[in-house]
Amino acid sequence: MSDKLPDLATDAVFVNSVPVPEDAVEVKGIDYSKPEAFNSRAKDLIKGMKTMGFQASSLSEACDIIDEMRQWRGKHVDELEEHDRKGEFDDQGYQKTTIFMGYTSNLISSGLRDTLRFLVQHKMVSAVVASAGGIEEDLIKCLAPTYMGEFSLSGSKLRDQGMNRIGNLLVPNDNYCKFEEWIVPILDKMLEEQEESVKKNGSEALDSSSFIWTPSKVIDRLGKEINDESSVLYWAHKNKIPVFCPALTDGSIGDMLFFHTFKASPKQLRIDIVNDIRKINSMSMESSRAGMLILGGGLIKHHIANACLMRNGADWAVYINTGQEFDGSDAGARPDEAVSWGKIKATAHSVKVYADVTIVFPLIVAATFASDKNVL
Amino acid sequence: MSDKLPDLATDAVFVNSVPVPEDAVEVKGIDYSKPEAFNSRAKDLIKGMKTMGFQASSLSEACDIIDEMRQWRGKHVDELEEHDRKGEFDDQGYQKTTIFMGYTSNLISSGLRDTLRFLVQHKMVSAVVASAGGIEEDLIKCLAPTYMGEFSLSGSKLRDQGMNRIGNLLVPNDNYCKFEEWIVPILDKMLEEQEESVKKNGSEALDSSSFIWTPSKVIDRLGKEINDESSVLYWAHKNKIPVFCPALTDGSIGDMLFFHTFKASPKQLRIDIVNDIRKINSMSMESSRAGMLILGGGLIKHHIANACLMRNGADWAVYINTGQEFDGSDAGARPDEAVSWGKIKATAHSVKVYADVTIVFPLIVAATFASDKNVL
Amino acid sequence: MSDKLPDLATDAVFVNSVPVPEDAVEVKGIDYSKPEAFNSRAKDLIKGMKTMGFQASSLSEACDIIDEMRQWRGKHVDELEEHDRKGEFDDQGYQKTTIFMGYTSNLISSGLRDTLRFLVQHKMVSAVVASAGGIEEDLIKCLAPTYMGEFSLSGSKLRDQGMNRIGNLLVPNDNYCKFEEWIVPILDKMLEEQEESVKKNGSEALDSSSFIWTPSKVIDRLGKEINDESSVLYWAHKNKIPVFCPALTDGSIGDMLFFHTFKASPKQLRIDIVNDIRKINSMSMESSRAGMLILGGGLIKHHIANACLMRNGADWAVYINTGQEFDGSDAGARPDEAVSWGKIKATAHSVKVYADVTIVFPLIVAATFASDKNVL
Amino acid sequence: MSDKLPDLATDAVFVNSVPVPEDAVEVKGIDYSKPEAFNSRAKDLIKGMKTMGFQASSLSEACDIIDEMRQWRGKHVDELEEHDRKGEFDDQGYQKTTIFMGYTSNLISSGLRDTLRFLVQHKMVSAVVASAGGIEEDLIKCLAPTYMGEFSLSGSKLRDQGMNRIGNLLVPNDNYCKFEEWIVPILDKMLEEQEESVKKNGSEALDSSSFIWTPSKVIDRLGKEINDESSVLYWAHKNKIPVFCPALTDGSIGDMLFFHTFKASPKQLRIDIVNDIRKINSMSMESSRAGMLILGGGLIKHHIANACLMRNGADWAVYINTGQEFDGSDAGARPDEAVSWGKIKATAHSVKVYADVTIVFPLIVAATFASDKNVL
Repeated sequence: MSDKLPDLATDAVFVNSVPVPEDAVEVKGIDYSKPEAFNSRAKDLIKGMKTMGFQASSLSEACDIIDEMRQWRGKHVDELEEHDRKGEFDDQGYQKTTIFMGYTSNLISSGLRDTLRFLVQHKMVSAVVASAGGIEEDLIKCLAPTYMGEFSLSGSKLRDQGMNRIGNLLVPNDNYCKFEEWIVPILDKMLEEQEESVKKNGSEALDSSSFIWTPSKVIDRLGKEINDESSVLYWAHKNKIPVFCPALTDGSIGDMLFFHTFKASPKQLRIDIVNDIRKINSMSMESSRAGMLILGGGLIKHHIANACLMRNGADWAVYINTGQEFDGSDAGARPDEAVSWGKIKATAHSVKVYADVTIVFPLIVAATFASDKNVL
Repeated sequence: MSDKLPDLATDAVFVNSVPVPEDAVEVKGIDYSKPEAFNSRAKDLIKGMKTMGFQASSLSEACDIIDEMRQWRGKHVDELEEHDRKGEFDDQGYQKTTIFMGYTSNLISSGLRDTLRFLVQHKMVSAVVASAGGIEEDLIKCLAPTYMGEFSLSGSKLRDQGMNRIGNLLVPNDNYCKFEEWIVPILDKMLEEQEESVKKNGSEALDSSSFIWTPSKVIDRLGKEINDESSVLYWAHKNKIPVFCPALTDGSIGDMLFFHTFKASPKQLRIDIVNDIRKINSMSMESSRAGMLILGGGLIKHHIANACLMRNGADWAVYINTGQEFDGSDAGARPDEAVSWGKIKATAHSVKVYADVTIVFPLIVAATFASDKNVL
Repeated sequence: MSDKLPDLATDAVFVNSVPVPEDAVEVKGIDYSKPEAFNSRAKDLIKGMKTMGFQASSLSEACDIIDEMRQWRGKHVDELEEHDRKGEFDDQGYQKTTIFMGYTSNLISSGLRDTLRFLVQHKMVSAVVASAGGIEEDLIKCLAPTYMGEFSLSGSKLRDQGMNRIGNLLVPNDNYCKFEEWIVPILDKMLEEQEESVKKNGSEALDSSSFIWTPSKVIDRLGKEINDESSVLYWAHKNKIPVFCPALTDGSIGDMLFFHTFKASPKQLRIDIVNDIRKINSMSMESSRAGMLILGGGLIKHHIANACLMRNGADWAVYINTGQEFDGSDAGARPDEAVSWGKIKATAHSVKVYADVTIVFPLIVAATFASDKNVL
Repeated sequence: MSDKLPDLATDAVFVNSVPVPEDAVEVKGIDYSKPEAFNSRAKDLIKGMKTMGFQASSLSEACDIIDEMRQWRGKHVDELEEHDRKGEFDDQGYQKTTIFMGYTSNLISSGLRDTLRFLVQHKMVSAVVASAGGIEEDLIKCLAPTYMGEFSLSGSKLRDQGMNRIGNLLVPNDNYCKFEEWIVPILDKMLEEQEESVKKNGSEALDSSSFIWTPSKVIDRLGKEINDESSVLYWAHKNKIPVFCPALTDGSIGDMLFFHTFKASPKQLRIDIVNDIRKINSMSMESSRAGMLILGGGLIKHHIANACLMRNGADWAVYINTGQEFDGSDAGARPDEAVSWGKIKATAHSVKVYADVTIVFPLIVAATFASDKNVL
């Protein structure tokens, strides 16, 4: 071993830095000399996380973006030509952001449902996209509860007990029996209405002006029928917030529709997905500004982003999920991938928070949508 | 510091083991004294990974399960009552496994499409479930290629260039223009056929016996029209392998259908999802044995599992994806969660391989479906 | 397709459940009819997340466990025999839990350092295990700041600018030059002290009673020398909380020690790791109760768990990291794996929270260690 | 709903692309018209994955990089000045790449140990960095086997049986008892040698020229003592390939060293980590070219990268692990982060493969290091 230290190493280790830009932001965390650091309120916590780095900063940025999309106001309706009077307006008549919120089924199974309902109840979002379980589990919870369980419970023992596991949650299978009892008469009635429309419209039965069931219409109807203030869909119906779910058959509702085809035969309920793509895309095109709030991955993420392409990109986007980009999945894609497609504007403010939604969304909502009791 | 070692520590560290069961399997890896360890063949590699532990063992187990589902044979069709002659049969007339294969859109965008096509071309699977991108990207690739890119390319620069990024792949936006040119005349024709059916069936236009478009029918038609041997859907059409995609509108086909609603107005194409849930569930119920081969997560995973509930569970299941269970997502759920729901039998042989599909499925296929050129 | 629904499907779908046990806990979330749901305080948020499921419940459980380990009290010192007067005692003389806290380097680079310092400053933990970067970055931050950056910044451009990236943080390379200036005179002095000990002890120079540098002694000395109240190590020194780091050379300190071997030759600083394993294991054996608080994975996780084996397992354990078990890594192993080794007691209360530490630990600390300003 | 399609949507959807560069690479997969696609050999499989996208392409790139680092040759030793005759040379006397291979403990516990041993046995790597378990488990496996288990086995039941779980592997605790019997006499002997050195060197006992134990010296000695051709360490000793493990005390060897402090008192083994940082950094500085092969994350990854900083960066780097960058961990950092630090050259060819090592490394080795039996 040589006894002289080669310059190679010192040159490599002691490379000089360029001067730090004046607007560079120092990393710092929570200041515990301040009393608000103790049992801190959501907004104080988020503030303290802003310059913390890693996902703490992303979480804080998500709150900033949500505030931006909520606070944006455009022109007053009276300033607008008739044909421009579309999109969302606030109570004073000013243009506001159309917020598309998407969530996966499991979040409705979890206690986060109460938070999602809060947002819909108070018209804090403009449209919802959910997977099929995200529809039916909301309804089923009005009929019977879901229970806490554990990730490690044995599947075969649970099957013997008729207990269905969703992560660390358990849904008694009886809940689905109750769901069937509740929904079958509604499906019967829906079929009657379909048949009336067919009769009325004759050879124009499938025209755009004719009534035909679509996932969003079915969901709206179920929200009306459940008539329960704990339900997201109840409030969506009441507040005329459309809930989209193109694959509505992919779950227990699908099971019920399947069984119903035997009961109704030769008649059959039909659910058209074309009209709903027109509906969500139209909402996107009519929006003055568009914000995406994506909780989870898969279809619900892609569907909102795709709708926003119709207006050449969303103005704000918050993704929260645990997907990773390395497998090329849409679920794991960063907002920047959506920019390449025109689904998010290049100038948009966007962030992805890498986390289970349940671990961060309660805090986010407390610091944004629910930061002030008085707004209700 | 005491100078005497307390028994506490030695008792804890030197706990004795119970005797190892006689059938315990020793961990061991590849034996490089064997010439087949060098530039090894897929089957030899898989064999060497069997007792390696971690995901190597899971990968090897996935191959075992695939072999089991492929090799199972039941009764000869002649031994069966008329009403039991359903499900899949081999060329000699023996019952075989109905294999449901699901894949996400990105896998069709990737070069794995050739592998998926190989399986469909040679009737190695019985039904396919894909997300919308998994349909259209197969067709678009017949019109123009997808290119290699990088995960880190700038979204805004790509948008300026009209290049869409999917992970480390790039799809020129012109490809979607070509797709539109190709599909619009087909949609026009499909609308004509719909209108003919409505006219013909009158007030029974939506009855189960009347023709109405469903995602699987649309896909079959597109597979026929593309008429290209490089296409998965072409072979699915040719081999009568149904391809399910309940959310068919969630992608470029949805964009085209959306645009078409304006072009066709007041007429409108309608795509019914109820009939397809009947179709896939019926396939499940009629199967003699059912195997699930799930590549990716989200809808395609849940849809196959849910169909298998109709027969009280699949007999074999292989999941390959990168999802984790901690967030309670269906994507991340282990096979044992599906056991609790009755979607996989308690007695079934199942495994989840935690990996990007592209990194393991080529090896799996080489060692199973494509282990022998002579079977073609 | 048959027109009669087979019993097979209905039997599978409508399996009955056993009665739900009386003590089953219903899933529910935040009650927005309560004013405390708005801009909520940490403890209220954690309470609302308890029955939410998925990681929200795990986060809430982590807080319960931390409260348990903090609140446990055993006998009064006066009740104990002389030889049992070991482990930790509170100010009133009652036995309390020995809390081992481990964290990875990146957390000190992040703004979470202020939170970690708060815990050490107020003697809320008993011992710390860190990786090498977790030592030096604490010191370097006293000399110059770390800045906010982005995950996607180009490595080669940053190298040209002398800016080192850690996730979405940036450390100017000049900071390491400053670190060298600061540490070299200390290393010189440390070498002198080593040489004095060797001279003094002669042939007993390596005996257990002779002074020789160990990682924990070096760290204690550096904490003393930095003499800065923003530093974790300063407070560790002041509060006599040992900081362990067996691989102290694996970072910038290692670079400096490497350079110093040339400067000091033929003399050489020596840092012994055997004495530190005796020290941490002894702390574990002497503890009345032991709690693990593991932030991140790798060495720091294993080292604390291994020390707790010496007392036949920790009584409480909280893991927070993003590792997954499927690759068999210790980083990703669940607490239950440590139970098999005797590193956590079978009766212990333990949880793993699957999250980036920065996204959850600020909330956890606010709801536990920092729930009440008055305790300071 | 308007009946006219706004240009907004069509303009956004049908953005034109710039022409695709002539050297753009088309995505394509395996060609099943070729017989080599069946039960394919490793090299054919890797070739087919090259243009597949996602991790398939990364895996293929990893093989290219390994081939590059293996095939590089510089000057002949006779062309070099005396003081430049350092680093690695091939059998013909030409400069070759110094390959640093790092692996985590679990990989030695797994059957991948045979593959790692193969590489060391045939001098295919120049230095090894392992975590403590990566040392002792190699030795223990010479004394008694590890067995296949399952991820879901109950920790408390296993503890009762004295079976330790590592992912889906099981190590009987008796193995550690056997390890103690084997190692204690060696530690006794090592202590004697230490004492001889102290006596011999007097006040120069800690000088750079005096013998003192370091982790790499201890490991070399254990490799010699185990004298078993199935052992990685045996071959490392025999082939003079240094094995670094700065935190050697963090595992069962640490337990044994801890117990030995009581047995040996007042004498005590001392293991110095300063000399090893000098040793690994010197290897890096002396290398003609440097390649990194990192299997897993944590210390072993950082330690190799940090050593390569001493030569202003590695020339090739392959990372294989499951870590993600979003939490700012070094484990999850991409190669580009190391570029910012000067640990990988800006011009280097590097890749990260996102996968459990056991699932891809057997294939990688079969297609590279073990592609040809004749090289042995």
